[in-house]
Amino acid sequence: MNDIFLKACRGERVPHTPVWIMRQAGRYLKQYQQVRKTVDFLTLCKTPELAAKVTIQPIDALGVDAAILFSDILIPVEAMGLGLKFSEKIGPQFSNPVRDSAGLKKLRIPDPENDLGFVMETIRILRRELAGRVPLIGFAGAPFTTSTYMIEGGTSKNFLNTKRMMFQNPKLYAAIMDKITQALTEYLKGQIAAGAQALQLFDSWGGALSPADFKIYALPYVKEIIKNLRKWQIQEKKQPVPIIYFVGECAGVLEDIKDSGADVAGIDWRISIDAAIKRLGSKISVQGNLDPCALFLPKEKIQERVKDVLTKAKGARGHIFNLGHGILPETPVESAVAVVEAVHKYSGGK
Amino acid sequence: MNDIFLKACRGERVPHTPVWIMRQAGRYLKQYQQVRKTVDFLTLCKTPELAAKVTIQPIDALGVDAAILFSDILIPVEAMGLGLKFSEKIGPQFSNPVRDSAGLKKLRIPDPENDLGFVMETIRILRRELAGRVPLIGFAGAPFTTSTYMIEGGTSKNFLNTKRMMFQNPKLYAAIMDKITQALTEYLKGQIAAGAQALQLFDSWGGALSPADFKIYALPYVKEIIKNLRKWQIQEKKQPVPIIYFVGECAGVLEDIKDSGADVAGIDWRISIDAAIKRLGSKISVQGNLDPCALFLPKEKIQERVKDVLTKAKGARGHIFNLGHGILPETPVESAVAVVEAVHKYSGGK
Repeated sequence: MNDIFLKACRGERVPHTPVWIMRQAGRYLKQYQQVRKTVDFLTLCKTPELAAKVTIQPIDALGVDAAILFSDILIPVEAMGLGLKFSEKIGPQFSNPVRDSAGLKKLRIPDPENDLGFVMETIRILRRELAGRVPLIGFAGAPFTTSTYMIEGGTSKNFLNTKRMMFQNPKLYAAIMDKITQALTEYLKGQIAAGAQALQLFDSWGGALSPADFKIYALPYVKEIIKNLRKWQIQEKKQPVPIIYFVGECAGVLEDIKDSGADVAGIDWRISIDAAIKRLGSKISVQGNLDPCALFLPKEKIQERVKDVLTKAKGARGHIFNLGHGILPETPVESAVAVVEAVHKYSGGK
Repeated sequence: MNDIFLKACRGERVPHTPVWIMRQAGRYLKQYQQVRKTVDFLTLCKTPELAAKVTIQPIDALGVDAAILFSDILIPVEAMGLGLKFSEKIGPQFSNPVRDSAGLKKLRIPDPENDLGFVMETIRILRRELAGRVPLIGFAGAPFTTSTYMIEGGTSKNFLNTKRMMFQNPKLYAAIMDKITQALTEYLKGQIAAGAQALQLFDSWGGALSPADFKIYALPYVKEIIKNLRKWQIQEKKQPVPIIYFVGECAGVLEDIKDSGADVAGIDWRISIDAAIKRLGSKISVQGNLDPCALFLPKEKIQERVKDVLTKAKGARGHIFNLGHGILPETPVESAVAVVEAVHKYSGGK
């Protein structure tokens, strides 16, 4: 069993640096495109056999050290009562964004097995099919990032509706965040119960907040989820699974990420990983942080970039190699293979 | 004459902290909208009397301590030979983006007075009409940010075409950057000659580069412009005008900004200004950095936020108050007034 990813999360000794790639099951893979020809994105997420199939594709194609559940951070939001649509051009759209207390009242806390059973079933299939080959990562959006989609109704440039509510009606915003936090905690418990061996919380838009606002409007809810998951796992007499907290544009809030309670800080490429490690300290592992666009370099240059990240990450408690954001659909698959090979080749034990 | 803005740029003593607002001449102002009803955006940029008129509107309406030329960073790019269109929905678009050496060869170095005379004329009108009321800031895009528009053909999410060229054809990219640097240097010389009393270089997308790439693909060209402008001004026996280097998502590259040769580092809101000042040191003034969305807070809260920035900026060589990015079109004008009043009220001399 390849458990070096889990060991690196916990800061234990590993034979080489583990690597996986955010959005590793995706459009840059022909195998994935084949599947997508037959079903739309949401149907794929909701069909356990197919979701499991595309989850495993990059394990075969790239040789990464972890699998991540194929799904979307908006899946539990849809189950909270918001009508979700995906279009290739516009991206995700909610037909009824939450903008007032009436919207808040309509939000429900989904039951993982009853309302999101297809996710739990995907996890069970994956654990069976992976059979210990690599660990399986479950995930959810972090509450702040989740709230932006719920309030904006889709992607956004400035997050003006979200921040406007935060600033003009902080009680309403806090009540929505409490509901999201509750829903995501249950959802993640469900994933652990179904077999997820690690979790990643995606705060992709966390960096859109000023550090002072991040402390008030993002961090406490992440802490709450992590604390409750830990408590619950101890009650259930299980060893807590490692939790990765990924924040996009994290350079201004690293000290807060350090305080989140997560086992691993996932960082983007806009900061040098050695500078990040210095500020994160020695009690948290680090995941990252190659620029996804670096995969458009020639192979030898990709190897140099990988070596550079590995060298700069040497001071970390533990390091999981990854990109600083999701792999781009235009990426040549050979480049993704080259990254994984280079990580394995150039990271000689720790 | 109100020259406290210029003094703060140079780190000299000032009676209160000066303040101006990025995009202070813009859609949040009714007076501006009135003018825009009669002309489209590009025509406005190219009609000196009207451009001067909207430049002065926020001086009257808000009482800011500096005027900034009304124009667009793409104006000199159009003059380099790229056909420019603006649409409300899509933003700027170039009909013939530069993607190869044929595109490079077609680029010309515009002559400020012959090709961009409308900008120079706007500056001359403004100096006459402002008559020392507040200093006039000229500006240009920094070379990297300028290159993204030229290569992408408009705005972009990942800057994939730009980075792809940078990574796969670094010689071509460098040649384009050299041409941009030359063109912008001449353009800025023209602005100084016409009467600009300070300059801002906008590297709004600079933070999209990893710190290692920023050092190679953005910083050297900015240094080159600043060095050449200084040399030229000394040759002309003029005191060099202060130069502000603004970088969006700057938190990963502050040490590089410090080395740019600029008098002032313009920073965004994603980092605490005290943390930024610590890394920028005592040889450069700082401009920023309120989140533009904070202008949707109630007035008393806006005042608190302003006070917080002022307090945190006390350690700077000099501080110019500003937002961390352009003011949003949806902003209530009373909020902009409240910011300016609060900066003046709560910054009692230095």
